Amino acid sequence: MRLARIITPAGPRPAVLDGDQWTVLTDLFDPVGSRTDERYPQAGTVLLAPCEPRVVLGMAHNSGPTDRALPPQAFLKSSRTVIGPGAAIVVDPAKGAVMAEAELAVVIGKEARRLGPADVEDVILGYTVGNDVTQIGQIPFDDKLTQVKNGDGFTPLGPWIETDLGPVLDGEGGHDLATRIERGSQVESSSANLAWTIRELLVYLTGYLTLGPGDVVLTGAPGTSLPIAPGHRVAVDVEGLGVLVNPVVDERARCVVVDHDPADPDAFRLVRSD
Amino acid sequence: MRLARIITPAGPRPAVLDGDQWTVLTDLFDPVGSRTDERYPQAGTVLLAPCEPRVVLGMAHNSGPTDRALPPQAFLKSSRTVIGPGAAIVVDPAKGAVMAEAELAVVIGKEARRLGPADVEDVILGYTVGNDVTQIGQIPFDDKLTQVKNGDGFTPLGPWIETDLGPVLDGEGGHDLATRIERGSQVESSSANLAWTIRELLVYLTGYLTLGPGDVVLTGAPGTSLPIAPGHRVAVDVEGLGVLVNPVVDERARCVVVDHDPADPDAFRLVRSD
Repeated sequence: MRLARIITPAGPRPAVLDGDQWTVLTDLFDPVGSRTDERYPQAGTVLLAPCEPRVVLGMAHNSGPTDRALPPQAFLKSSRTVIGPGAAIVVDPAKGAVMAEAELAVVIGKEARRLGPADVEDVILGYTVGNDVTQIGQIPFDDKLTQVKNGDGFTPLGPWIETDLGPVLDGEGGHDLATRIERGSQVESSSANLAWTIRELLVYLTGYLTLGPGDVVLTGAPGTSLPIAPGHRVAVDVEGLGVLVNPVVDERARCVVVDHDPADPDAFRLVRSD
Repeated sequence: MRLARIITPAGPRPAVLDGDQWTVLTDLFDPVGSRTDERYPQAGTVLLAPCEPRVVLGMAHNSGPTDRALPPQAFLKSSRTVIGPGAAIVVDPAKGAVMAEAELAVVIGKEARRLGPADVEDVILGYTVGNDVTQIGQIPFDDKLTQVKNGDGFTPLGPWIETDLGPVLDGEGGHDLATRIERGSQVESSSANLAWTIRELLVYLTGYLTLGPGDVVLTGAPGTSLPIAPGHRVAVDVEGLGVLVNPVVDERARCVVVDHDPADPDAFRLVRSD
């Protein structure tokens, strides 16, 4: 199933894709039991970030197989940094260079605490594409990454959650999802290049903290990062999950995307918010 | 005004204290305009954490005046670590030593972004007591503090929010709030011993990330920390804000406090949850 949060006349609603229509749900986490009769055509419906995490975790040094020499390590991102497709990544050039990072993102479906390897499948709602925007210019000043990872719009998620992505939890014989970032040039890699498997990451993370419905784990960029700056438009893409496109705007001329056409990712309408 | 979140027969509700009664509000952030006719006696009413933050920030190395030699630095805590008065701090002794830390906590009332010094008053809803529980045994393994700061119940907040605490934003001539922690022995200090003032902290933090209603900044423990272990009961207290008391329970025998008597902080009723 493909799950999303869409804008309806009554406000944001969770929804599931049936053919070329979004069927509104009353509960994102019960896509079978909570269907309503309300439907919207896929074309023209504006998608928001597909979930509303309370906790967003990113993985440090998980960008290639050699990182396995280090223990896994995670950082928290503010849930207020989450934006959906088409919304603006807001960059302050005075704070130094900024990278966009294409990542496979795990969306948690239920309380996840002290998981064993066999418990992992059960707590995952599905997968989406994450862009872990990183102000690398601030890394020398803040090893905790708070100044690095939490600018406005620094966690684009979407365009939707895929619940049936196949066997992605494990390495060998498991996932090999093409992961791409495009911004002028393109970098392509695979989720199979991550140092730690998703099963390992969730066992590690839930050994120290409790996750819950809607929480998101950004699994790390397997080399899929590119510098971004105001005026750019960055597309990130994980095989089987669709393309997540966001414009980059300048802090000093803060803009908000109010509309875009999913059929034409270049067709943004930018409206100045202040 | 004294604001809290209380348990009512219809579920948790924000409330404001009138004399010895809690008056239910429809909106914690509009304590004047959103009063209802529903009232509960102060005695016997169970208090929850007084707000529901999306973002919880703690301050690193802000425990004494000499820390001013370093730039301010912050870390994020998972909002799922927030608990209220009487709820359990869950400790896994296998992960090493744990400290409780008594801190003045700032509760944000509205969007706070790129504040200048003169903007700070306007975004603060009020103050509460925070206990920034810290698994120091994990610090050597995780400089990002994710393994250190995010155990279940690691952010007790309460017992309520005081909106009129006096001039606490600035240092010199400003706040000098006695801050205490008690667990067997007692440590007392003052918020005036913090390296950075609250005004400085909020200007710093909102320069890098956006805060919003209900978010919490733990301002740092001015020496007010003590080791805790299962079986302990830890009380933290900031002058003018009341005492926040939480039991410490063992991970392996996880317990949840379902009731306690605010008039007698020792009278906890512990119920095993699993």
